[in-house]
Order: sequence, then C-alpha cells, then structure tokens
Amino acid sequence: MGRMITVNVELGERAYPIHIGADLIGQTALFAPHIAGNSVTIVTNTTVDPLYGDTLRAALAPLGKQVSTVVLPDGEAYKNLETLNLIFDALLGSRADRKTTLIALGGGVIGDMTGFAAACYMRGVPFIQVPTTLLSQVDSSVGGKTGINHPLGKNMIGAFYQPQAVIADIGALRTLPARELAAGIAEVIKTGAIADAGFFRWIEANVEALNGCEPTALAEAVKRSCEIKASVVAQDEREGGLRAILNFGHTFGHAIEAGLGYGEWLHGEAVGCGMVMAADLSVRLGYLDEASRKRLVDVIVAAHLPTRAPALGESRYIELMQVDKKAEAGAIKFILLKRFGETLITQAPDAEVHATLAAAV
Amino acid sequence: MGRMITVNVELGERAYPIHIGADLIGQTALFAPHIAGNSVTIVTNTTVDPLYGDTLRAALAPLGKQVSTVVLPDGEAYKNLETLNLIFDALLGSRADRKTTLIALGGGVIGDMTGFAAACYMRGVPFIQVPTTLLSQVDSSVGGKTGINHPLGKNMIGAFYQPQAVIADIGALRTLPARELAAGIAEVIKTGAIADAGFFRWIEANVEALNGCEPTALAEAVKRSCEIKASVVAQDEREGGLRAILNFGHTFGHAIEAGLGYGEWLHGEAVGCGMVMAADLSVRLGYLDEASRKRLVDVIVAAHLPTRAPALGESRYIELMQVDKKAEAGAIKFILLKRFGETLITQAPDAEVHATLAAAV
Repeated sequence: MGRMITVNVELGERAYPIHIGADLIGQTALFAPHIAGNSVTIVTNTTVDPLYGDTLRAALAPLGKQVSTVVLPDGEAYKNLETLNLIFDALLGSRADRKTTLIALGGGVIGDMTGFAAACYMRGVPFIQVPTTLLSQVDSSVGGKTGINHPLGKNMIGAFYQPQAVIADIGALRTLPARELAAGIAEVIKTGAIADAGFFRWIEANVEALNGCEPTALAEAVKRSCEIKASVVAQDEREGGLRAILNFGHTFGHAIEAGLGYGEWLHGEAVGCGMVMAADLSVRLGYLDEASRKRLVDVIVAAHLPTRAPALGESRYIELMQVDKKAEAGAIKFILLKRFGETLITQAPDAEVHATLAAAV
Repeated sequence: MGRMITVNVELGERAYPIHIGADLIGQTALFAPHIAGNSVTIVTNTTVDPLYGDTLRAALAPLGKQVSTVVLPDGEAYKNLETLNLIFDALLGSRADRKTTLIALGGGVIGDMTGFAAACYMRGVPFIQVPTTLLSQVDSSVGGKTGINHPLGKNMIGAFYQPQAVIADIGALRTLPARELAAGIAEVIKTGAIADAGFFRWIEANVEALNGCEPTALAEAVKRSCEIKASVVAQDEREGGLRAILNFGHTFGHAIEAGLGYGEWLHGEAVGCGMVMAADLSVRLGYLDEASRKRLVDVIVAAHLPTRAPALGESRYIELMQVDKKAEAGAIKFILLKRFGETLITQAPDAEVHATLAAAV
C-alpha cells in the first residue's frame, strides 16, 4: 500500500482512528481490529456497491465473519425514516445481534443513516465508516453526528454516536463525479475559513489541484480537515458551544436544501452558497472586511460551486432557518466570520438578514 | 400534598430523582426545577389525556411556558416507527427547539416512545416521565431504556437516555383497569424474585392489598421496586452484564408478545407467564428447587396473571427468542433463578427448552 496517515479523534473511551490513504478499502488489516462479533452488515447504495462492494467483501473474507449487504437507493432524498427502516428490516432479517458490526460504505447520506441505525439497533451496535466521497471524508464521517432528515428540517432526528474507525480511501475519489468533488471542496474551504488562516491560504493555492483530483493535494486536504474537525469535536463532542462553528454556511445552506427539496442541490453546494451568504451578512454587520469576503467568494467560484441562492422567497428562507437546530424560541443564530480562523455566533437584525437574502438571489 | 418519597438514581451527571406519592401530577413545584427552556410538549394518549391532561397543563401554567400536547393512539400495537414520527411531526410543527422539554404522560408505551423521541429529536432534548400505570411506575420509567418495537422483535430500536425526573403519582392508579394493575404487579414480583427475598416475602403477604389498589401497599411496592432497579442500573447503565437480570421472564415474555402480535397480551401479563416458564426451566436444569418454583407460581396466580402460554408452536418460540437482544449468533440466553434474590444467565440445552415450552402451553 501507499503511504497511510492516521488522525486520532481524542474522545476518551470513544476515541477512534481515521486512516487516510490510497486503496485502503481492500486492506483486511485495517478492519480486523474493529470487528469483535461474528457478523458484519455492510450498508451501501446502488451507486457505490458496484464500484467498491466486492473490494470490501474480499477484504472481510479472511476474517471468517458472516457478511451481509444492504443496498439502499442513492441520494439525500432517501435520507429519511422509511429508508432507515430498510436497514432495521435487513438487520433483523439476518438476525444481527448486539455484536454485529455495521460498515457504512458510501458518502455522507450512507454514513449518517448507518451511524444512526447503529446507534438505535438494540440501543447501540458498533460501526465503521468507509467514506467514499470527499465530503464524507473531510466532514460527515468525523465527529459522530448521525441522523436523518424530516420534511420540515435537515438532520432533525439523530444521535451523537462515534464509529470504531474511519477508513478514508483517497483512491475511491477517482470515480467521484465532478459535482460531488466540488461539494466536498466546499467543506474543505469552510474548515480553513473558520479555523486556520494558513490552511485557507493553502486551499487558495491548491484549489486547481483539488479540482483535478490530484492525490497528494486530496490527501493533504482530507488530513488537515480531519485534524481540525477532530480537535473541535474533542473539545465539544455534543455541541454545547464551540462545535457550532462547524456550521458556518449551514444555516443558509440547510434552508436551501430543505426549501428546494432534499437532493436537488448537493449538501456541499448549498454550503458553498451558504458561506457566500454568511460572509455577506458578516460584512453588513461590520464583522468582516470586504477583501476577505471577496477572497472567500473567489475560492468558492474557483471550486465550481454555486454562489447565487435559489429564489425561495425571503419569508420562506426565514421560516426554514427558524427550525435550524441552533435556533432558540424562533430566534435564528448565525455563524459569522470575523477573519479567516475566527468566527462568532450571534443573532442578526432582520433588516441585514433581508438585505443578505435579497443580494444573494 | 400527602407524604412524598424520593428515590435517587445515581448516574453521575445523568442522575435524576423519582418522586413517589399521591396526587403529584398537579404540583407545579415538582416540574419547575426540570424545565429550562421556553416550551414544553406533553406526549400522551387518547385514554390518559382526558383523565390527567388538564391537571398537568394546570400545573405547568404558572411556569409561563408555551405548552403543546400530542395525543397518540393507545396501546402497544402503536409503539412503532409510524407513531414515533407523529411526535417528530408535532415537535417540528410547533417549532420545538433544543431546549424544549418533552413530558411523557402515560404508561410504558408512552414513556418508551417519548424517551426515544427525546433522545433523537435534534440529537437530544430533555424529558420528564410522568408514569400513570403501575408497570411504568415500577419498571419502564426507571433506567433510561427507551425505544420502539419492530414487527420482528420487541424494543429492537431505541436508545439509553435518562429523564430529568420521574414523577410517579400513585393517585393515578385509581383509574387503572384491573388487568393493567395485574400487569404492573408482575414486574413487582419479578423485582422481588431476582433481587430481594425479603421483598418477595412482602409481596406474598401483600398481594391482595396490591390487587385492591391499597395506596400504602402500592407506594411501598413502587418505592422498593424503584430502589432495586435504580441500584442495578447505577451499577450497569448500558446493560454490559448485571442489568440483564431485570429481564427475568422477558425472554419467553417477549416471544409471547411478538408471536401474538403486540397488544394482544399486556407486557406484564407476558412477563408473568414468562416467569412461570423461566422458573420451570430453572427447575429442569437443577438450579431452582420445586418449592420455590411453586411459591413463585402461586403469587403470580394470586395476582391474577396468566400462567399458561399461548400455543404458538415450539419452533416459533425458538425463532422469536433467537432475535432477543441478549442472544448472540442465534444462541438464546436465559435469565434463570437459583433462589429468591439470586439469578444466573446461561444458555440451555434444546431438550430442556422444548420440555419447558411443551409444559407451558
């Protein structure tokens, strides 16, 4: 195998490793330490199973476990209670027990649903994340947020539940459609913007290499993003405070996703546009300078992400943002940028929010 | 108010009090310390809301919170994903936020579903248990097990999630149908049998007082049962070992419930019959003496609980018990009795299990 990097998420008895490298899905030795019981259920989707299902099953074969596979329909539109129940049906149908390990093979939707199923099945069974998209490698597979959408709000139903390990195979990104690659770069940009001005500059310098799926650049982006997110999560596992900064661009972004119907825009696309809106609001409220806003917008454009928001109507945006999990008693909380590496969380006057919405469409 | 007893469940930062006494539902002061946010959602059912809904809403009124009520259909048959989703619909419809407190007003089904909804809504909101049946007062509202049924198995989907407080109003038992009272006494008998020979003798001596809904006897039964369960749970919150003893009678009992269809027998009725079967198996395997078995059966009969199992067929019983959460790789684990106050957890030879099933019908 090529060079593998490991980032550890320090969460005491729930600590776990993130292994990052090329062609890791086929490596038996990476899975062996994390599978204690006699059976494994792989949860994947109709797109990913034909690409990597056999590689994973071949890697598991030498372990002598009973392996079954659940293949779900692909897409954010299926991240709901009905699809979740398909996982439970399969687990009970194959007599999965409390020691059965679930393996999430796919992107963020598969990871979020499989993690939530693992949290709930028999009140908790172990699971391993094998993220196959850039977005899930840099973001959704790190930190233990699991869940499903509700027609009235994204990720409204879920659990904090940590995996045994994350195995992020950079090689899997070779088959990723360009639109999904861009969606992943959005979360990389977010991570740099909120937490590390040096990493943000690195992204500005390397965005073309990332667009071109250059392995060294991708590995570095995944490693730095995971390190930053792991550090934030280790300080605030259950989002009592600090962790909310990871939601930069997500308040507007979730509204776009829910307003258009899940799956219309990719999550990362909505976050890209949401960051443009959050930066606009940050400037209007006097927290961020115009030059920094422009740098952020420029790199979002360079990553081929959308910067114009869909015309849902201002009142619909407000309504959707009021059900955001950060809102309290209907008061929306925004994650705003002061400078690269420094954020604040605050309510905002209606006039400025409306101005941002009007400017964004 | 009359005399109130408080049992504390010692779980570190998740510790909580169980208040036991007559006419507690109407007491504002019991709720006030446990409601931090601006809104409360009461989850109850069509039977309990007309009886105690107004009393609870009147108790909450002086706190100045926004109070909404979700009224679910009544019965174990509704303890499923579809009904759970009605709670989420209501929470999102009323814009419940991360600080909204859920109050479970009802029996075990309402408590289990409300607790699970609280565990999952926005990945966790606070909740208070107000159990209105004897079964939920002595058992299901203590210990943080929450969840729903799956057609293939009882309580298969859920979470360990502790309430802020339990308010067990003995007065509410006055309206309890005799069949439900008996079902609650089954869990009282179970608690004495597995953990405390002295309490078991007390139950033998007081079973008629309990059948007659005598308040002093009920308060004592609730207090002793909660103390014992709280002690077990404090030692093993997530059922790594010891806690499984609380499942005495439940391996057979869950099979009866799932096999007949949820709601046909009450949970406590199935546990009553399941204890008869577990005691029979305990004698067959040489762990328990016949005289103790007879004492257990006698008190179950005295509590007007069923002792003959429904004729599901032996292979169906085995199949249903193999999906029990304690089973591993299809091997069923039984909680057996050695003497009152002492249990063991073990697999059993097929011949003896079949003999018990044959004898039970």
